[in-house]
Amino acid sequence: MADKPVTGAGLRGQSAGSTALCTVGKTGSGLTYRGFDIKELAEKAKFEEVAYLLLKGKLPNQAELSEYISKLKSLRGLPDALKAVLEQIPKDAHPMDVMRTGTSMLGNLETEESFDQQQDVSDRLLAVLPSIICYWYRFSHDGVRIDTETDDNSVGGHFLNMLRGKPASELHARVMNVSLILYAEHEFNASTFTARVCASTLSDMHSCVTGAIGSLRGPLHGGANEAAMAMIEDWQSPEEAETKILGMLERKDKIMGFGHAIYRESDPRNAIIKHWSKKLSDDVGDDVLYAVSERVEAVMWREKKLFCNADFFHASAYHFMDIPTKLFTPIFVMSRVTGWAAHVFEQRANNRIIRPSADYTGPEKSEWVPIEARR
Amino acid sequence: MADKPVTGAGLRGQSAGSTALCTVGKTGSGLTYRGFDIKELAEKAKFEEVAYLLLKGKLPNQAELSEYISKLKSLRGLPDALKAVLEQIPKDAHPMDVMRTGTSMLGNLETEESFDQQQDVSDRLLAVLPSIICYWYRFSHDGVRIDTETDDNSVGGHFLNMLRGKPASELHARVMNVSLILYAEHEFNASTFTARVCASTLSDMHSCVTGAIGSLRGPLHGGANEAAMAMIEDWQSPEEAETKILGMLERKDKIMGFGHAIYRESDPRNAIIKHWSKKLSDDVGDDVLYAVSERVEAVMWREKKLFCNADFFHASAYHFMDIPTKLFTPIFVMSRVTGWAAHVFEQRANNRIIRPSADYTGPEKSEWVPIEARR
Repeated sequence: MADKPVTGAGLRGQSAGSTALCTVGKTGSGLTYRGFDIKELAEKAKFEEVAYLLLKGKLPNQAELSEYISKLKSLRGLPDALKAVLEQIPKDAHPMDVMRTGTSMLGNLETEESFDQQQDVSDRLLAVLPSIICYWYRFSHDGVRIDTETDDNSVGGHFLNMLRGKPASELHARVMNVSLILYAEHEFNASTFTARVCASTLSDMHSCVTGAIGSLRGPLHGGANEAAMAMIEDWQSPEEAETKILGMLERKDKIMGFGHAIYRESDPRNAIIKHWSKKLSDDVGDDVLYAVSERVEAVMWREKKLFCNADFFHASAYHFMDIPTKLFTPIFVMSRVTGWAAHVFEQRANNRIIRPSADYTGPEKSEWVPIEARR
Repeated sequence: MADKPVTGAGLRGQSAGSTALCTVGKTGSGLTYRGFDIKELAEKAKFEEVAYLLLKGKLPNQAELSEYISKLKSLRGLPDALKAVLEQIPKDAHPMDVMRTGTSMLGNLETEESFDQQQDVSDRLLAVLPSIICYWYRFSHDGVRIDTETDDNSVGGHFLNMLRGKPASELHARVMNVSLILYAEHEFNASTFTARVCASTLSDMHSCVTGAIGSLRGPLHGGANEAAMAMIEDWQSPEEAETKILGMLERKDKIMGFGHAIYRESDPRNAIIKHWSKKLSDDVGDDVLYAVSERVEAVMWREKKLFCNADFFHASAYHFMDIPTKLFTPIFVMSRVTGWAAHVFEQRANNRIIRPSADYTGPEKSEWVPIEARR
């Protein structure tokens, strides 16, 4: 990278706007949503409460939260035309392509005609995204047309219920709740920035979220927990894990789930999800995967001073709950849609179209040659 | 805007990367693609030749161009699953939502598994986007399932043939060719920048193009030619147009099709499309719409020193070819997909994830209050 110009490289450290939603990596508090510390939210809040905080601007009181949960429960059904579309998507499709297509299709059926509808459109997306992925997954993999309108109170419980056909245990619902809180918002990351660029043209919410899903799909953004799972799942012992990791480091392989573009010392989400991964490990009587994960963490710190980010212990946590690896990134979408939508609201409220410049590196003037004379 | 911070407002004038594809508004040459002046391209080139220039890096020789045109012709068919999806989209949907959904669905069926496939995936999109919009349009509006595999040599002729069920005249095919060249590429505009942000996560081409379509959908970006048409179509004479425009200026209404974020003196594309709009006006025996358009241009310059951008005379030109107004922006997509894809190639070839910072404007620290105690 030494010979490449620094200007504009990924816009790192350049301000692209303002936000009241989130701080990442500020001293003393690693991650805050509207000023609330992530540790406190993960311990004390419901995910629906955090969604309310992000989307409506304050923590709800009991009546507001109950009403909001009821509203979300009422918005889980899929229109027939959307079901028909999901049934056309093959089993081997990338689940993020399914999320992207389902969201885009919904935009044809329930178009946001005016920004006055932005709260309702966002609540609908929050409620229906788990239905979209589970309807497709169960239809394409198990051949069943599930009813997406369950009686679960939480988004996480709803997802697990549809996926498995039975209500989630208290522990599993709790871990899903924590996980969805941890992934809900993270300032101007690439998918959120995609949503804001789209919003800056005054496009509709479905376009913004569809675009954000496409960006989250990239292996440099979402998908790190899937990659971490793929790495650790074959290792039978901490000793094997250590040998393999040392080999990967030797070969300079990319090891997913470690380090971060913004955090310098640690990712505040790691300790939280690690705690819950341990509980799940005890619950299922695992004596390999958690120990392997802990060893990988220790080796990466010892050898490279690299810390686990939010994704690493999410891999084992989701795995202990029997969630198929390829659905890990769609869970990220179910959560982050709250942050995306809240950023779209902000962009719309104080908009200027996002249209940067570029450094031109092409020819100054090219001379036209008639096609007969071209080599 | 005076009390809002300038930092980061739309990233105006800030470099977000480099490109060899395009210059916009440089002295002496208003718009160039890989160093070629837009005036020369619009006069001498085929759109497919310009697509080749953007996507493959040089002008093709005769054998290369013939082969490329044959390739594009072979890629116009729609998979059955994509047809089934398009048939689920209602007649009153926004055509840009159809383009976005069709592109996203194609990503499920013909996933870009590796960047080695990027040229083929881009050629496929270039060839098939007119099929997507016309198949939906003719099915939802006329109840017919068209054959999208026509024998037309050009993208523009293919589009008009599918739309009307008969091959285009030479004049119409020529104007479509010019129009597609004019809209093909425009540096780091908001939709192209969306594609590059998505590409910077190393996501797939369908995600990048799907996101770009969502951004182009916004009224501040694509759609200006549709808005211009909606404005001028009811005016019966130049005199009426002048009165109405003066009234709009008086009320400070937004008048679409004028001025530009980058160009300061004129949009080099305007003289070109205006010339062809005049030819079409003569061809159809119009004695109102072109005269109205010219008067609007004169009044806007006289009163506000605002010049027509590429969109204004596109409105009348498309209208003279009997293209429904709501399909104007999808034509933009059929063209700009070449620029989007070429920018994705560039981003991938020298990538750093695009992840800017934000100015935080929220509370420093919020104190958790138990839900029972909240107001």
